Amino acid sequence: MPEFLTLETPQKAYSFLLKHLPPVQKKAVLVETKKSINRVTASPILSPEDTPSFHRSTVDGYAVQASDTFGASETLPAFFKIIGEVPMGSMPGFQLHMGEAALIHTGGALPEGANAVVMLENTQLMPPADLEVYRATAVNENVVRKGEDLKAGDVIFPAGVKLGPAQIGGLLALGILQVPVAIQPQVAIISSGDEVVNPEEKPLPGQIRDINGYALASLVESWGGVPNIFGIIPDRPELLEKAVRKGLAEADMVVITAGSSASTRDLTSEVINRCGKPGVLIHGINIKPGKPTIMGVCDEKPVIGLPGNPVSAIVIARMFVTRLVARLSGLTRDLPFAGYQATITTNVPSMAGREDWVPVNLRQESGKLFADPIFFKSSLIFNLASADGLALIPADVTGYGSGEQVFVIPLY
Amino acid sequence: MPEFLTLETPQKAYSFLLKHLPPVQKKAVLVETKKSINRVTASPILSPEDTPSFHRSTVDGYAVQASDTFGASETLPAFFKIIGEVPMGSMPGFQLHMGEAALIHTGGALPEGANAVVMLENTQLMPPADLEVYRATAVNENVVRKGEDLKAGDVIFPAGVKLGPAQIGGLLALGILQVPVAIQPQVAIISSGDEVVNPEEKPLPGQIRDINGYALASLVESWGGVPNIFGIIPDRPELLEKAVRKGLAEADMVVITAGSSASTRDLTSEVINRCGKPGVLIHGINIKPGKPTIMGVCDEKPVIGLPGNPVSAIVIARMFVTRLVARLSGLTRDLPFAGYQATITTNVPSMAGREDWVPVNLRQESGKLFADPIFFKSSLIFNLASADGLALIPADVTGYGSGEQVFVIPLY
Repeated sequence: MPEFLTLETPQKAYSFLLKHLPPVQKKAVLVETKKSINRVTASPILSPEDTPSFHRSTVDGYAVQASDTFGASETLPAFFKIIGEVPMGSMPGFQLHMGEAALIHTGGALPEGANAVVMLENTQLMPPADLEVYRATAVNENVVRKGEDLKAGDVIFPAGVKLGPAQIGGLLALGILQVPVAIQPQVAIISSGDEVVNPEEKPLPGQIRDINGYALASLVESWGGVPNIFGIIPDRPELLEKAVRKGLAEADMVVITAGSSASTRDLTSEVINRCGKPGVLIHGINIKPGKPTIMGVCDEKPVIGLPGNPVSAIVIARMFVTRLVARLSGLTRDLPFAGYQATITTNVPSMAGREDWVPVNLRQESGKLFADPIFFKSSLIFNLASADGLALIPADVTGYGSGEQVFVIPLY
Repeated sequence: MPEFLTLETPQKAYSFLLKHLPPVQKKAVLVETKKSINRVTASPILSPEDTPSFHRSTVDGYAVQASDTFGASETLPAFFKIIGEVPMGSMPGFQLHMGEAALIHTGGALPEGANAVVMLENTQLMPPADLEVYRATAVNENVVRKGEDLKAGDVIFPAGVKLGPAQIGGLLALGILQVPVAIQPQVAIISSGDEVVNPEEKPLPGQIRDINGYALASLVESWGGVPNIFGIIPDRPELLEKAVRKGLAEADMVVITAGSSASTRDLTSEVINRCGKPGVLIHGINIKPGKPTIMGVCDEKPVIGLPGNPVSAIVIARMFVTRLVARLSGLTRDLPFAGYQATITTNVPSMAGREDWVPVNLRQESGKLFADPIFFKSSLIFNLASADGLALIPADVTGYGSGEQVFVIPLY
């Protein structure tokens, strides 16, 4: 098995793959901002207007001229004449002069002439219409000035930013009802194997249902891709090649889940090499589970050959396919995975130089998080399906002892 | 402002709220397994069959009777007669006897009579049809036995489990094409404020567009809920009460984003108290941003009054609304948030006893992750929108110094 002679580390393998891919695509489509969650900006978004569009108070209090409060203190208050109340939702109909104050609520518009707001708790009413202020207030204190958040023409977001709730709220605040986002990448998913049948079918003795196709499809979907399930291809080179060529023609990326025998791995490899340049780049990664992973590029499109074992396939898809999908979705950054710090509860051995991902169950006890490793054969999907996540044993660590801190990522 | 006399910690406030809520709902609906990503099982799922349904090889090698390899070694190999090759996808048409071996591929079905598989690398062919085996093999070695993953009737998943790619793959492997999941909770979203207009409208001077409604809607959606936007209600008690009562009648939970002035907070509080028992439970949380948060329960349904500042509103929604949505979706566990460990690059002060969440940008440099805090007023939505996440300063910490490790959660 020559492919295992030089096993790359996961990070080196992935970087090597990226080097053979073109820059992130920017093909754009306009979508409704309200429905743009998880989409990625395809071009810089500019502010169409100043925001806020008027000087706003950030507290409940009194609008004043800051200079009138100079030197004010508990023992020596400044005195003001109250000239009115700022209505919410419209501009005050009056102008404020020296020595005058106007009641204002959070979000209210400063009257012309005012340049600061004194907080309610630093004042006291002296009926009928006078006010004592016990604290000096600086110019613009408790005020967001017109255009302080954004000025017309400011870049709100550069290209390549994922839109979450805060971003969507921000765009709508500016009246941006449509937003140019990168088109979602199409991912062709090819299952192969003479023993594999569709989930709808009743397997004959010796056959099994396809696990990887739909598991992969849902992973691709939750990371922003559009899965295109090509179905199950028999283990014949010409049929697999035909499917891969179709995938390359129709999709932005091809993922093959072939059988796990050495011969089907070789078949996958040969087909990738025939379908485009440079072909197979990585054949075997120093990771467990997932060693027999194939990574290739055919004429600028990534082609991933997942290991045949379902557990290995899902772990490798989680490690690499998700990031490729995010990249093809227009994301310009590749942040590390978010996860948990937890205390591992069993000794877990590992091989020096190999990165291990151990399925674990997470458990909270008196405010602490514990990771219970699940040990099983990598062909047993239901043990993985009962796991909460994968605990990392980095390549430079030869296992963890019970009680040590581990980093756990959720399975998707 | 009596509501701020006793500020609860975020965890105590949330636990107190949960105590007043009924157990997690289990109203079920059948959905296609292929489309069940992120849904939560509403009842235990049982395996309809044994899996695997036959003894499967986990390696490429030779099926044998284990006892025949007893004592085999490099210097003293065991000899076998090769009687055939196991076809993929069907049962071998032959039976295996003592002294016999059959070529088998990963995933192949063991012939009757065989009980172990010798790996290819521990064998050598002696043409025409003889085999040397250099390693003793135990019974069931390199084999997954029929029913070893699951037996018919085994519980695959209990109720309350979120379905991810591994779970979907597992269900389809068993031919479970439909799965009973908890119905998605309806979340009524009510914006109030005389100064607030719809994003589609051009605000008049003194008015602003609604930020919170759709930001919240997209957050609710990405956590498994169905947002129901009630629109903008003027700051009049009878209109807000009407909207909350409608929300309670139609939805499983009500979220109100009112203005941020003390008077509108009081209005929200009074309305919640009028709409059901026990009414307002928490009025003010020791968290920044987000202090003026209101939590209540009206006749078994949670009602949350978010702070008026958009940044505070989104942070509080991230902290509590998402967890309530997940709970109402049928999830039985409330794991902590997943996040990043990062090095903070600026001193960040905090008040003892208060939990702070500081917006940060994340930056990778030579394999390390750095968190650059963004300092801004909590009314400026675009600074939050440019953040990658929120760094936690726990209540028992009075700030962090540059270079210290912080925990950062993504914004959604």
